[in-house]
Amino acid sequence: MRRVVELIAQKRQGGALSETDIRALLAAYTRGDVPDYQMSALAMAIFFKGMTPEELAPWTDAMLHSGEVIDLSHVPGRKVDKHSTGGVGDKISLPLAPLVAACGIKVPMISGRGLGHTGGTLDKLESIPGFRTGLSVTDFIDQVARLGVALIGQTGEVCPADKKLYALRDVTATVESIPLIASSIMSKKLAEGIDALVLDVKVGSGAFMRTEAQARRLAETMVGIGAQVGKKTIALLTDMNQPLGRMVGNALEVRESIDILAGGGPADVRALTLALAEAMLSLGGVDPARAEAALDDGSALARFAEIIEAQGGDPTVCQRPESLPTAPNRTPFLAARSGYISAIETTRVGLAAMSLGAGRATKEDSIDPRVGLEIDARLGDAVKAGEPLLWLHHDDRGVDAARAHLTAAYQIGDTPAPSRPLIIDRIE
Amino acid sequence: MRRVVELIAQKRQGGALSETDIRALLAAYTRGDVPDYQMSALAMAIFFKGMTPEELAPWTDAMLHSGEVIDLSHVPGRKVDKHSTGGVGDKISLPLAPLVAACGIKVPMISGRGLGHTGGTLDKLESIPGFRTGLSVTDFIDQVARLGVALIGQTGEVCPADKKLYALRDVTATVESIPLIASSIMSKKLAEGIDALVLDVKVGSGAFMRTEAQARRLAETMVGIGAQVGKKTIALLTDMNQPLGRMVGNALEVRESIDILAGGGPADVRALTLALAEAMLSLGGVDPARAEAALDDGSALARFAEIIEAQGGDPTVCQRPESLPTAPNRTPFLAARSGYISAIETTRVGLAAMSLGAGRATKEDSIDPRVGLEIDARLGDAVKAGEPLLWLHHDDRGVDAARAHLTAAYQIGDTPAPSRPLIIDRIE
Repeated sequence: MRRVVELIAQKRQGGALSETDIRALLAAYTRGDVPDYQMSALAMAIFFKGMTPEELAPWTDAMLHSGEVIDLSHVPGRKVDKHSTGGVGDKISLPLAPLVAACGIKVPMISGRGLGHTGGTLDKLESIPGFRTGLSVTDFIDQVARLGVALIGQTGEVCPADKKLYALRDVTATVESIPLIASSIMSKKLAEGIDALVLDVKVGSGAFMRTEAQARRLAETMVGIGAQVGKKTIALLTDMNQPLGRMVGNALEVRESIDILAGGGPADVRALTLALAEAMLSLGGVDPARAEAALDDGSALARFAEIIEAQGGDPTVCQRPESLPTAPNRTPFLAARSGYISAIETTRVGLAAMSLGAGRATKEDSIDPRVGLEIDARLGDAVKAGEPLLWLHHDDRGVDAARAHLTAAYQIGDTPAPSRPLIIDRIE
Repeated sequence: MRRVVELIAQKRQGGALSETDIRALLAAYTRGDVPDYQMSALAMAIFFKGMTPEELAPWTDAMLHSGEVIDLSHVPGRKVDKHSTGGVGDKISLPLAPLVAACGIKVPMISGRGLGHTGGTLDKLESIPGFRTGLSVTDFIDQVARLGVALIGQTGEVCPADKKLYALRDVTATVESIPLIASSIMSKKLAEGIDALVLDVKVGSGAFMRTEAQARRLAETMVGIGAQVGKKTIALLTDMNQPLGRMVGNALEVRESIDILAGGGPADVRALTLALAEAMLSLGGVDPARAEAALDDGSALARFAEIIEAQGGDPTVCQRPESLPTAPNRTPFLAARSGYISAIETTRVGLAAMSLGAGRATKEDSIDPRVGLEIDARLGDAVKAGEPLLWLHHDDRGVDAARAHLTAAYQIGDTPAPSRPLIIDRIE
């Protein structure tokens, strides 16, 4: 390998690193032979100078092969997964995975926990009494083969190089680099052994990407990596300028997901679930029209009950969602004035739910599955002073902090916000 | 102190750090409380985003006060030093220091050793039999008080924060940052306890700054730091597109320096010595016209003999320079064709001398004081095929490598190089 300082200098000057150099560098970094102080300088140079598609493919592939890669080659059928860049009230994975599996696609979904203002799929699933997300790789593969779908957390050492680099980026102000974000996401998803991938890249006041231009760049970069490594990838750019659906919080979001799987639920959640499902089906070679039918004929909900049962949970929640854990109190958050909801600082809605115990400020925080927000007022709605904008489901934790966040989050003006499309673009 | 990751993010976005943050950061870094991986990311962000004069002043001051600062306040008179950014054949400190001292200015000169293609003042002085550069701080101060001048190496822990950061920059491709270079140089010089400073910022094929624009930016940045910290600083931008003078190599450069002090020597070395001396005298409140007189009346040479005697060396070399160590062989390097010297890749002339043993490729290399180059042909000179361009003074080390460097260094064309001024500009 060339000296690492030469690779840093090359990137600093805007040059592209060779595949050989990238593979050698990341292998050495994984082994601990490249010190963090060189890797952080390189990450900062990448922040300023980017990476070309020809660099990103081996970078992602080297990350992906730094650890365990799940082998689903013996499971028949096309394996397709979805990843979301994270938002507030984003429970789409819960209805989506059983829906797509019910249409005949294998969905080997490995998810994360929530941190900060966004929730995590694992935390939501674990609000179902008994539900286990910690399956072994063997059990995971068996369940994908048998049920077409499994919903678990990371197994063993997936992408240890990415894990190490991510921790370093977190303390060196180099998180916000599109190529580093893109390769980090793609390496973890591709380690699932999938054939194709759908990305939900969120943009707006509750998303990591606040502008459409940033989100588009991230989406294009990830789609490009997928193309380079031979895993067809479709990205939807979707709006995150208000919470998705009416529910924010773990058990609350499971209830809303069950509504969707039963053919009901809020229009935006249903629309986004179907759009993502249709993209996954088209990647899997299945008629996208089947998605809507599977929501309405009960087959998607039945598959969710099978997943819950297979993973140790109580499947009767699908018939009786009210049996899910419930917070002791439900109190309103009132409109301070009359007018129209003109803007929502959605991140602060997420922080409000986190304050109540629905999310974690640090990795060590515990979660209360019962608490969260039930939202009545959406962008553009007319509201009257003193009427509820939303309801807090809470115990005695964080109510004042939540109210402070919500007061800052909701803007009521004299004219409604211009309406925005939920699905902004599709990039493939 | 704010979290270091926030300071890095602020700099990455092009913001300026506050004096409070800078002082706290560098104090914590010196104590070992800020890890190298954060400092290297910050250095890379500074490479891209620079530092304002308001950042550079506390940055330099914090570096300077991270270690020992020499106190010359009890030595009467103005203390003025010179620093050169380094070149090939740059022996100017040797005639300059005694010359300026002979004119009544105190010159507390702390120098370094050579590394790479440039020589070091200490190595040159140590080619004088017996000369000691390792004086204690007390002896240094005493000699400056008594003789007006001392020429030594770094004492104790001067600027340990800079030393630590420099070592980190060296392995993270963050050396080439004008504000970091400027603050590193200025912190070390200001730790000498001087009142004012003259900088010789070299530009061209043998300099670290290859373009006039870069050199000018560095000069302006250092002059700005001097102004901010109340130490008047003048920078000369000077040409380094060919070796300075006729001699490159340690004992050879001492001989040439003695020639200059005796009123002779090559025109360019005399001109640059006088220009720098005049700037130092003007900063010290002495009539600059005294410089030329002190070269021609022997007082500067007499002062050099006194320095040598005071620092343990044999002062008779000033009368008999031929008693300095001499290489066993002197062989020519011939012009490959007839024409005009149209360009010199001066760095390679330095590397040729280094190959013979006149310099160090790594800090551990030993130096042969006797070897080097004696140069006949200067830029623009007409030369004939087969006639000597220069002479190698050598033992049996590195002759082939030196010839290879010289072959690559000297370009002979059909027209002479346009003549360039030796002193390009004066910045204050």
